[in-house]
Amino acid sequence: MTGLDRTDPEGEIAKTVARVSNWGRWGEDDVRGTMNFLTDTKRVEAAGLVRTGRSYSLSLPFDMDGPQNGWRRRTNPVHTMLDTGTDAVAGVQGFPHGIGGADDVIAMPLQCSTQWDGLGHIFDHGRAWNGRPAESVVTSLGDGVTGIETVADVVCGRGVLLDVGRALGAELDTELGTDGELPDGFAITEEHLERTIAAQGSAVGRGDIVVVRTGQLTRARRGLAAGEGWGGYAGGPAPGLSFTTADWLHRTEIAAIATDTWGFEVRPNEFDDAFQPLHQVAIPHLGLFLGEMWDLDGLASACAADGRYDFLLTAAPLRVTGAVGAPVNPIALR
Amino acid sequence: MTGLDRTDPEGEIAKTVARVSNWGRWGEDDVRGTMNFLTDTKRVEAAGLVRTGRSYSLSLPFDMDGPQNGWRRRTNPVHTMLDTGTDAVAGVQGFPHGIGGADDVIAMPLQCSTQWDGLGHIFDHGRAWNGRPAESVVTSLGDGVTGIETVADVVCGRGVLLDVGRALGAELDTELGTDGELPDGFAITEEHLERTIAAQGSAVGRGDIVVVRTGQLTRARRGLAAGEGWGGYAGGPAPGLSFTTADWLHRTEIAAIATDTWGFEVRPNEFDDAFQPLHQVAIPHLGLFLGEMWDLDGLASACAADGRYDFLLTAAPLRVTGAVGAPVNPIALR
Amino acid sequence: MTGLDRTDPEGEIAKTVARVSNWGRWGEDDVRGTMNFLTDTKRVEAAGLVRTGRSYSLSLPFDMDGPQNGWRRRTNPVHTMLDTGTDAVAGVQGFPHGIGGADDVIAMPLQCSTQWDGLGHIFDHGRAWNGRPAESVVTSLGDGVTGIETVADVVCGRGVLLDVGRALGAELDTELGTDGELPDGFAITEEHLERTIAAQGSAVGRGDIVVVRTGQLTRARRGLAAGEGWGGYAGGPAPGLSFTTADWLHRTEIAAIATDTWGFEVRPNEFDDAFQPLHQVAIPHLGLFLGEMWDLDGLASACAADGRYDFLLTAAPLRVTGAVGAPVNPIALR
Amino acid sequence: MTGLDRTDPEGEIAKTVARVSNWGRWGEDDVRGTMNFLTDTKRVEAAGLVRTGRSYSLSLPFDMDGPQNGWRRRTNPVHTMLDTGTDAVAGVQGFPHGIGGADDVIAMPLQCSTQWDGLGHIFDHGRAWNGRPAESVVTSLGDGVTGIETVADVVCGRGVLLDVGRALGAELDTELGTDGELPDGFAITEEHLERTIAAQGSAVGRGDIVVVRTGQLTRARRGLAAGEGWGGYAGGPAPGLSFTTADWLHRTEIAAIATDTWGFEVRPNEFDDAFQPLHQVAIPHLGLFLGEMWDLDGLASACAADGRYDFLLTAAPLRVTGAVGAPVNPIALR
Repeated sequence: MTGLDRTDPEGEIAKTVARVSNWGRWGEDDVRGTMNFLTDTKRVEAAGLVRTGRSYSLSLPFDMDGPQNGWRRRTNPVHTMLDTGTDAVAGVQGFPHGIGGADDVIAMPLQCSTQWDGLGHIFDHGRAWNGRPAESVVTSLGDGVTGIETVADVVCGRGVLLDVGRALGAELDTELGTDGELPDGFAITEEHLERTIAAQGSAVGRGDIVVVRTGQLTRARRGLAAGEGWGGYAGGPAPGLSFTTADWLHRTEIAAIATDTWGFEVRPNEFDDAFQPLHQVAIPHLGLFLGEMWDLDGLASACAADGRYDFLLTAAPLRVTGAVGAPVNPIALR
Repeated sequence: MTGLDRTDPEGEIAKTVARVSNWGRWGEDDVRGTMNFLTDTKRVEAAGLVRTGRSYSLSLPFDMDGPQNGWRRRTNPVHTMLDTGTDAVAGVQGFPHGIGGADDVIAMPLQCSTQWDGLGHIFDHGRAWNGRPAESVVTSLGDGVTGIETVADVVCGRGVLLDVGRALGAELDTELGTDGELPDGFAITEEHLERTIAAQGSAVGRGDIVVVRTGQLTRARRGLAAGEGWGGYAGGPAPGLSFTTADWLHRTEIAAIATDTWGFEVRPNEFDDAFQPLHQVAIPHLGLFLGEMWDLDGLASACAADGRYDFLLTAAPLRVTGAVGAPVNPIALR
Repeated sequence: MTGLDRTDPEGEIAKTVARVSNWGRWGEDDVRGTMNFLTDTKRVEAAGLVRTGRSYSLSLPFDMDGPQNGWRRRTNPVHTMLDTGTDAVAGVQGFPHGIGGADDVIAMPLQCSTQWDGLGHIFDHGRAWNGRPAESVVTSLGDGVTGIETVADVVCGRGVLLDVGRALGAELDTELGTDGELPDGFAITEEHLERTIAAQGSAVGRGDIVVVRTGQLTRARRGLAAGEGWGGYAGGPAPGLSFTTADWLHRTEIAAIATDTWGFEVRPNEFDDAFQPLHQVAIPHLGLFLGEMWDLDGLASACAADGRYDFLLTAAPLRVTGAVGAPVNPIALR
Repeated sequence: MTGLDRTDPEGEIAKTVARVSNWGRWGEDDVRGTMNFLTDTKRVEAAGLVRTGRSYSLSLPFDMDGPQNGWRRRTNPVHTMLDTGTDAVAGVQGFPHGIGGADDVIAMPLQCSTQWDGLGHIFDHGRAWNGRPAESVVTSLGDGVTGIETVADVVCGRGVLLDVGRALGAELDTELGTDGELPDGFAITEEHLERTIAAQGSAVGRGDIVVVRTGQLTRARRGLAAGEGWGGYAGGPAPGLSFTTADWLHRTEIAAIATDTWGFEVRPNEFDDAFQPLHQVAIPHLGLFLGEMWDLDGLASACAADGRYDFLLTAAPLRVTGAVGAPVNPIALR
């Protein structure tokens, strides 16, 4: 946490922004931020990484048993039926020639489970991505400028897993850290990221989609299996990226980054009184897309088994017009 | 329509089922139907098709301007905000250090826009896929057996566009058919499919995901631009697959098939009094996944331009536990 | 329309507000506006009006067949089931001793059908009721000051039906006006209200809840029966109160007023370019509660039959915390 | 619990039903059950009870802070905004002449807070009210026969508060029972009801709407104030009516009954393995309407102060077509 003034998040944010801002980098009309780094060339390269043909869904289930607890009115999805098999069998559907059907409905926050934060999700002092006034971007009608639909067709490229839990967990002097898991409150620094990259032998660079495994979801799942519920997974203490990685996120020119945690950055945050300060830099200033609550365990086991940590990742968000975030079923193909 | 008895859909369905049923083919516990054809080998082959690195979203927008009209309580998505930029700027969010945020919520039928029909979506005389009693599969709690989550990780493979609109539209003696569009009510037969395949030079076989462009969406979009609304797109007359293609769907051993129409099969259906008879064969008996309301126009233009009609298609459904269908943002990478 | 400058709604609104504003009348902390006129004494008087003991619901049905058409994302209610009788009979509910159950869910705009507009529903130049800045009253979290819950216990008192459709319809030189209906676009002036009062012999005064029947719903219902749908009921041309009745609404000191139309005031509005100008005076400046889409036909027939137009009216809104409006099932007891 | 066989709820239910069934009492087409007892004459009598003119809302707030915990997918209401004051002030609404507006939306189970159970809410061995097969009454489309709309206009009459908490609490040998509260698990028997009636001097008879205060909500509210949350209010242990009161409920010919608890009857239920056995008798066999989660504290204080326990009660459910239950804002006028 090299030199962060814990009492002055606002000042630290301002200093960091001065170093890393991407405002104007792709013109004043830009709505795609770091997705501009993700080029067709990158996708050709990514397709070339496919060896086994095995595909992995990195999505949690969307259902009432999810991690949300009502904070800021974020609930778990409510899935109800418009028609059912029991209705069909009871003969009440009124269709001809023996056909029966089932239909369903969902009501859910777009931030309730595996998702992308869009560029309209976070503001810094009333400014959204590229310097736009927040009130001219996101109203009750949604995000009229940088809605998630602007990247509906591009989020497909080279994915790189950084399994920090596995790389560093073993050496950490903690009970929790012995099995590929970082403890809650652990701040992943640039040095940790670079050591993971070195250990794995996986380069990270322009246009990559980085997925960082902390192991917290592994731990939460163990708690679920033990009947303990989700605990503080949604908003409580968690391992995550240190505020100080803002420069690394900028310098590497990655297109997007996702974690297996609720909130991407370390919690509690690294200031005395703060709320998600790295978001405040990454989304409105870097124009960086953040993924949260991704399930990386199956993929991570496969990567660990054969030592290949990059793959073709297709993670196109559900195309909800004006959404400030969107659910996604990311597919890693390796 | 070679020999179909228009007055007896129930009899024709029964005869067809006798020829094409896949019940038991993958064991009595199977929940993935034709997705079993989509193997890792197929995905390796598909990855090898990528040349330009250009990706295409085949999803319509999800918003209030969609095609639904309330039939069977299918509405368009209602997207509302939990927090906004206007709130952030008004200073009412109560966050520290100048951070502001926006969150959102959606309420929508899972069948409202670009989607996959799951195996629990349609029954035949009270039987679901693989012969299970419909009432033991889909209750008010959802599909407890073949919910869409069972294929959340597999729908990624070789996609083949069959642009029947382009291939046959020009030769049809109709005003509508002159611009890569089939007229409403046009039944696409096996012969039409094979002529399209021959014209394009694109083989179709085991494990492929076939996407059939009729051009109806092109026409609907023209109507929208002219201020005429969606017209009958959602449930009205439409080009689509003939009931008689059931054998082709079975014989080719494709993994899935999608169209640019609301209902996949031709409408009005090819019987005097019927409702989606091909669904009644394809879903519960073939175990075939049907995609509907896919936007194929951008992809089709690219395919027509360079004559390559196959690509890597990733179309993993949103992972809603127990869903009988699910929204999807399909990405074609070519 | 005596002297209204059709080209200057903003000016006319300002002039009217200068005459009728109730800001500060009940103290600067007031959140109940004209409901302050509705006293316990008034309720005792109202209870004394009950003769026959017959009760009338003034609510439209809440279902998918309602009048909403999606304008400003106002949809009709979507009512789905969490459990059903078909499920119970299929034996899938898992309850003991033969009990079965059904539960349900609704998703709906609070303004979708029979409702009260709350005091946070309309602003004038950024000011809400009693002069408060709109942004400090209604955020994405709802109305934190004048939410409908502030009047959850008071909306019960003397109701007076003014059946303007019956009183004036017969004499109007129009085909539509012959059967107790005013034509669309008919502006009800103070003179029309007073003539109706005189014809009926029903005094209107402080603390009364006035319900105005125009007959438009009668006409809409006739259209529905004829298979023509709701037509323009939700937002199209309609009879309704003239902008010029603002002074009457103020002078009479009524507690609330409701109509059988979508929008209370006449539509098109009485200015060249305007949107609900009487709302802009009545809600933020008078602090007056407006009811819309009330079904008055059954009550009106009873009143016409015995010549008694006042009754005990209980119309307490659903107690949704922070709502800017709320559905209601008003009960007239006479 | 006089003689109940704790091991045989099914047998006890059957024996009770044999004594109290109202099937056929109002004809085979009846859809209103005990609401048939609530006549116009009764309403005239009820209006005559009004003395002070003070009105009391018996509704809990409908918001995210409610008692639901997700059991059987019953969530608390999610209230979101379609337009806000912050939007209006930001000038993004596009309305003329300075008007601004706010609109809102709700998504909620109809059983989430203060409500009436409708006659389609509970079945006994696949039979609904009046002996109808449950599958022909409540499907995924809702209750097509006894939907709550069938009583939308009648639930207005003489209310009688039985403040069992106050009448018996003081004498109970329990810490909890000292302040007008019954302890959790306390089964209110006919004898308790009659003692309360005697203590209060309030007769109960045909057509009355009885509201029973146990004091559990008083206790829950104390817990909320202490930051302890709702505890087990929604579904946990609670005082409530004994299964043995079925005969009293039948004999008195009351129109409806409501309590200040989640589930009306005592919990845990009075059998070794049971779920709401009194519901199984009361709803499908008596045709009795049950109210739950009513807030009776304010009313009860007033009744205790002047010794008058009956009043005019208007408790018309929200008119949701086909609902098996409905939210309500009951108003007691005394």
